[in-house]
Amino acid sequence: MYHVKIYITYKESILDPQGETIKKTLHQLNYQNVASVTVGKYFEIDLAASDEAPEVEVERMCAELLANVNMESYRYEIEAVSVNEAI
Amino acid sequence: MYHVKIYITYKESILDPQGETIKKTLHQLNYQNVASVTVGKYFEIDLAASDEAPEVEVERMCAELLANVNMESYRYEIEAVSVNEAI
Repeated sequence: MYHVKIYITYKESILDPQGETIKKTLHQLNYQNVASVTVGKYFEIDLAASDEAPEVEVERMCAELLANVNMESYRYEIEAVSVNEAI
Repeated sequence: MYHVKIYITYKESILDPQGETIKKTLHQLNYQNVASVTVGKYFEIDLAASDEAPEVEVERMCAELLANVNMESYRYEIEAVSVNEAI
């Protein structure tokens, strides 16, 4: 079993209106020292072992479903866990 | 300057309809070995140093704005960076 963590954020060139809005709100809440905010999606997936390498499957899942590869970039961490450690 | 990564997910007891939907979709895309999917929010924040410890500020930001503490749990990583390493 693998425990996969996937982080998806907008590409640098893409405007992040949500991030800008949250930054402004944090400034209004007196967190003036917040310099920048980036908002993204976060997935935790438990993946049973299969005949394919988990990296190959995770790359395909991101490209096929989880990320909009035109606007978003993704990175992931894969950790082998024993079955009873899964979520 | 601090580079802060914040991960926000539903508490264990809370139903995660988005996670369930994504799991079903992944199964339909033939990723039958996906055992569970948890969906969450991910923030990257650059925070200038201030007279308060960054942990204190991040805890307050999460409790005041970024997380719905009734339904969500949060964890974060704080890394000291030089100013030109920030986003």
